[in-house]
Amino acid sequence: MKRDFLDMTDFAPSEVDELLALALRLKRGEESLPDALHRKTLAMVFMDPSLRTRASFEVAMHKHGGHAVVLEPGRSSWAFETERGVVMDGTTVEHIAEAARVLGRYADAVAVRAFPKGNDWSKERQDRVIRDFASYCGRPVINLESTRRHPCQGLADALTLKEKLGQTRGRRFVLTWAYHPKALPTAVPASAALAAAHLGMEVVIAHPPEFALDPDDMAAMTEVSARAGGSVQVVHDRDAALGSAEAVYVKSWGALSCFGRPADEAVLRAPYRSWCMTGERLQQTQDARAILMHCLPVRRNVEISDDALDGPQSAVIDQAENRLHVQRALMIHLLSGTAGKESL
Amino acid sequence: MKRDFLDMTDFAPSEVDELLALALRLKRGEESLPDALHRKTLAMVFMDPSLRTRASFEVAMHKHGGHAVVLEPGRSSWAFETERGVVMDGTTVEHIAEAARVLGRYADAVAVRAFPKGNDWSKERQDRVIRDFASYCGRPVINLESTRRHPCQGLADALTLKEKLGQTRGRRFVLTWAYHPKALPTAVPASAALAAAHLGMEVVIAHPPEFALDPDDMAAMTEVSARAGGSVQVVHDRDAALGSAEAVYVKSWGALSCFGRPADEAVLRAPYRSWCMTGERLQQTQDARAILMHCLPVRRNVEISDDALDGPQSAVIDQAENRLHVQRALMIHLLSGTAGKESL
Amino acid sequence: MKRDFLDMTDFAPSEVDELLALALRLKRGEESLPDALHRKTLAMVFMDPSLRTRASFEVAMHKHGGHAVVLEPGRSSWAFETERGVVMDGTTVEHIAEAARVLGRYADAVAVRAFPKGNDWSKERQDRVIRDFASYCGRPVINLESTRRHPCQGLADALTLKEKLGQTRGRRFVLTWAYHPKALPTAVPASAALAAAHLGMEVVIAHPPEFALDPDDMAAMTEVSARAGGSVQVVHDRDAALGSAEAVYVKSWGALSCFGRPADEAVLRAPYRSWCMTGERLQQTQDARAILMHCLPVRRNVEISDDALDGPQSAVIDQAENRLHVQRALMIHLLSGTAGKESL
Repeated sequence: MKRDFLDMTDFAPSEVDELLALALRLKRGEESLPDALHRKTLAMVFMDPSLRTRASFEVAMHKHGGHAVVLEPGRSSWAFETERGVVMDGTTVEHIAEAARVLGRYADAVAVRAFPKGNDWSKERQDRVIRDFASYCGRPVINLESTRRHPCQGLADALTLKEKLGQTRGRRFVLTWAYHPKALPTAVPASAALAAAHLGMEVVIAHPPEFALDPDDMAAMTEVSARAGGSVQVVHDRDAALGSAEAVYVKSWGALSCFGRPADEAVLRAPYRSWCMTGERLQQTQDARAILMHCLPVRRNVEISDDALDGPQSAVIDQAENRLHVQRALMIHLLSGTAGKESL
Repeated sequence: MKRDFLDMTDFAPSEVDELLALALRLKRGEESLPDALHRKTLAMVFMDPSLRTRASFEVAMHKHGGHAVVLEPGRSSWAFETERGVVMDGTTVEHIAEAARVLGRYADAVAVRAFPKGNDWSKERQDRVIRDFASYCGRPVINLESTRRHPCQGLADALTLKEKLGQTRGRRFVLTWAYHPKALPTAVPASAALAAAHLGMEVVIAHPPEFALDPDDMAAMTEVSARAGGSVQVVHDRDAALGSAEAVYVKSWGALSCFGRPADEAVLRAPYRSWCMTGERLQQTQDARAILMHCLPVRRNVEISDDALDGPQSAVIDQAENRLHVQRALMIHLLSGTAGKESL
Repeated sequence: MKRDFLDMTDFAPSEVDELLALALRLKRGEESLPDALHRKTLAMVFMDPSLRTRASFEVAMHKHGGHAVVLEPGRSSWAFETERGVVMDGTTVEHIAEAARVLGRYADAVAVRAFPKGNDWSKERQDRVIRDFASYCGRPVINLESTRRHPCQGLADALTLKEKLGQTRGRRFVLTWAYHPKALPTAVPASAALAAAHLGMEVVIAHPPEFALDPDDMAAMTEVSARAGGSVQVVHDRDAALGSAEAVYVKSWGALSCFGRPADEAVLRAPYRSWCMTGERLQQTQDARAILMHCLPVRRNVEISDDALDGPQSAVIDQAENRLHVQRALMIHLLSGTAGKESL
């Protein structure tokens, strides 16, 4: 039975904890497992651009003796068709049914990035591209950010919170919406909140009223949170929310009510240009010491000001570094089954 | 003396058989040669896009300790000039004379994909880009699909036929033309038919009258076939041809009489939209059991229907997987000289 | 203290000599150091295209057990912002402040190519993109060609001169401007002249009067040359300069007085179309034996004629090959500290 990693909840909570513990040991050099991925290959399919994901997975594979192959459909390889049953007489050249099956024959695991196409949320919210890809592929499929989830980012977020805060249960995690010149997907905020919920944190999501996340995301967070002994709350008053925050996760996303209508969405978004995180606002957090998180790339002085990003509370570079370590742990877990048994 | 692999006929028939035998042992794990390509490098030059070729060669090199470098002239590297004696004051930035020579100094072998440009068949049929590249380069050059040949695909086709049919001599291989929204090159059908001819099969090529392959291709097939004890035949009645088929290879290609005139070619092609392979047609083959082959990417429900591709006769994924194994064997043969001596 | 390699003068002259000596031993196989870069990674950031640089660094890393990750901002990864303090509400998606810091967490070294943007020489001549990148990054940063310098090319040029001429001090190196359909950067000519100056050569730069290099480049050459016992001279009569040349380095560059105004620059350049190096002109060099150098890619029959490039005096392929060997030495020097102590 092959294991996929499409969502953090695909793994049992204890399995996630083991992954995080292994990641931390790898990061600290307490464990090195230099040949755990010897001659293993990961095929990475980027339907959308990447810096961190690509670089960190390539380095992760190499550090343990493996190799990542990078494919970019529509650029260096053929444009993919993702719909079932379609008559392919248009511009798409290869169906993911073939691509997924073939790559599963070449590589030991396949990783896929497929952002939403931005047409119809009622359909795209099913996250079918990544799910179909996984169902076609005979090897473990790893989600590098789909329409709904970015679980590798979620793992890195969780590791960062554990590293910076130590004991996480009951501590306040504020996910705050930010302005951005474009309507961005919701996969990262949903995954970050799920990560904090997994850690039993008091999750507060602050956003303008029009920017609610999908109800299924909220339900998933509530379920994970309940099991882990935390809570989830939505507020529209960002400044109040920051008061007792110990971690502030800044992220922009588009209004789902206007999904597929960017001009309308821009009108909804326009009044909230002041939702930019600044050093001054970070001073309002608990003991003026909350860590500042962001998945990167970040629009400087739009989402977060220079002084906040370059200031002492910023954890964004550590958080990006943690992508490397959680992915080392993930690949070792999936491909060599040597994930450690100790808890963090 | 360096060895190139531009066409299956560059190798003696016994050498091809040894390659196929090694590929099969590698596939079955009977031989692993984990360090046969230790620290060897293959420079891959893609003047045109790729999924299978790129991924399978990268994995092939890594599996034996080597590494493939991927270059894409005109995108990530400089646009190539291929004509001799030209005054380069236009848009091309680097001549293949330099590129081929330099890459031959960096890598242990160089692989090149260069599709036809679609201007003038009388000139392009000479396949000069790949041949010039090989003549300039001091290291083995491997054809990743040129105007006239795709010999790595041919090797994979041959391995698939041997695996699926066992004894191949005298058994019926039907290469059937298919409709496609674009005029495609003839390298794959020529190489597939050559592969079947090499195996001594009874090769039947079914296509509408306007879609004859180049006479030189037909002559090459006839010569290979005669040596191997098989036969080659062209028919225009697809359904009759399928009757006793044991392997059905579906492939589209453009009419060479209209090469360089796509609008005219589209008019020629239009009446043959019904040349789509279906599950029902596959039932008309010998004992309703012929294997279905295609080089991929395939236009679903245009070249081949969903039910045929996803049905029990489909061998297209195995065929794609075999790219990996024949290329492992090829690289080991070219770079380490350890190709096994046993015949299949 | 991390070491960057942004300019040849970042290293002490003796250190450059050691690098060149190691490169030569590696090239000749007198030293192999097969595991000197075992499991080390180099992240390469190409803001502009590359063939030689990319291929030679990938091969260099692999030959010693390491791996190079290739990133292409604006294509496969996010478009970079390079200005400080900017409000990023336009088309750039990630600031190099984040990119440089993050890549320095993933890889053991980071290499960057960033050509001039072609707007304002008074500003761009500060070479701030590469310098900022290095200041943000916690790991060694290697210049793969910035606005002002291409030091890896300079190292390869120096190695080629040593190999071909043996003793270099006092021997005549002529850098001659060439016509080209576009205004090219000055990083290569400046770096080549610096390399020859480092070797104590009699450096002669021949160019039409309008094509002076930046005064700072001239000052740097003069300083390096004085220390090494050579000389630097500018002339406008190419044919006279060739008389006693033992090495002829052909290179085109744009007129800095028209930087950012390509139409004006083209007018300045137009009268000099005859500045193309030919076999006949090479015959005018010392004993008709001067070696012909060029960094590649070269516009055949525009910068250099076919007969010169393909003739016996051409060293351009050896020069390109030397990129590989100097970069092997450079990476080993930066990442494993095992650069040999012997002088050449």
